[in-house]
Amino acid sequence: MTVDDKNIFPVYHEILAREEKEDLLKQRASVIWFTGLSGAGKTTLAKRLEEELFSRGYLTQILDGDNIRTGINNNLGFSPEDRYENIRRISEISKLFLHCGIITINCFISPTEEIREMARSIIGEDDFIEIFINAPLNICEERDVKGLYSRARRGEIKEFTGISAPFEIPEKCNLEVRTDILSIEESVKKILELVLPKIEQE
Amino acid sequence: MTVDDKNIFPVYHEILAREEKEDLLKQRASVIWFTGLSGAGKTTLAKRLEEELFSRGYLTQILDGDNIRTGINNNLGFSPEDRYENIRRISEISKLFLHCGIITINCFISPTEEIREMARSIIGEDDFIEIFINAPLNICEERDVKGLYSRARRGEIKEFTGISAPFEIPEKCNLEVRTDILSIEESVKKILELVLPKIEQE
Repeated sequence: MTVDDKNIFPVYHEILAREEKEDLLKQRASVIWFTGLSGAGKTTLAKRLEEELFSRGYLTQILDGDNIRTGINNNLGFSPEDRYENIRRISEISKLFLHCGIITINCFISPTEEIREMARSIIGEDDFIEIFINAPLNICEERDVKGLYSRARRGEIKEFTGISAPFEIPEKCNLEVRTDILSIEESVKKILELVLPKIEQE
Repeated sequence: MTVDDKNIFPVYHEILAREEKEDLLKQRASVIWFTGLSGAGKTTLAKRLEEELFSRGYLTQILDGDNIRTGINNNLGFSPEDRYENIRRISEISKLFLHCGIITINCFISPTEEIREMARSIIGEDDFIEIFINAPLNICEERDVKGLYSRARRGEIKEFTGISAPFEIPEKCNLEVRTDILSIEESVKKILELVLPKIEQE
């Protein structure tokens, strides 16, 4: 039996409205979606961004490929189907946070236009801020913070984005941040300039 | 490849601590877990409880069998395996909200000790408040707000809790609320007496 059997009665409209929760928090909710290669700096920037927003009184939640995959998505791998289900679940979770008035900062490679489009359509265009955290593959591979690139090169990790699985340049992103050119602080400043006007209450 | 392959690096310790978010919100996070038959009054009480808590300045999020199943769990049915996966995902989502300092109010039949024990162990004993929303089966069936009991009696819904699937009396619940005896307001008052001391910041 699935939800199509009509014994499901969504209660979104009956529970406290998102706007009331946003008013309590004195912020507008949003999903800030970082896409980019492993090693491009997504989680590093997310943590700095969260600190900056918190110091201004904003409540945020980082959703990270790593902490999500040790929890709710610990039964998913890295095949195309599982990557899709991974991003689908994350998008639905983000939507629950949105309804609670909270800003999420999502750090996921999300390598294809199709997968980012799916996230955008679940979350809704108006609440989806897509930021391409970009550094050239050779720089990411040089950084190799987690040692994953060398393992992928040795063939120990299959379907690794940039090596044995594709990464498609985001065509629709709201911002591109070149972390090989900008410092962490410059990158965060650029992101704040985009994000702050969208999350401030009038 | 699964998370056991060790290319997963949880970042919980590096992101903003739950305590800092609780301080921002001036509340202590918790998961208030309502268990009970369909028609016992879980969602009705959750909505009234949320209003009461909101009026006191608390930020909450209702997680409801119905709104969850139209979103993140729209690919799950009602077989024992799917019920288990349903509750597992909900527990992991609750944990993310906990880390964000938020009080969730979860309304799920969660019919067996095993399934409630799984939720408790994912969420953690200290943050798990289990409340048995209890009305006798014949009362729930009489109410039959959604017409599900009559469909289940006609055999149109399989594995329906109370009719063709078991409901085990919660042995470990923190509170039992008899909604066939108490009014909605009396029920909410009783829940508030239990919950408020746990979510107040010292």
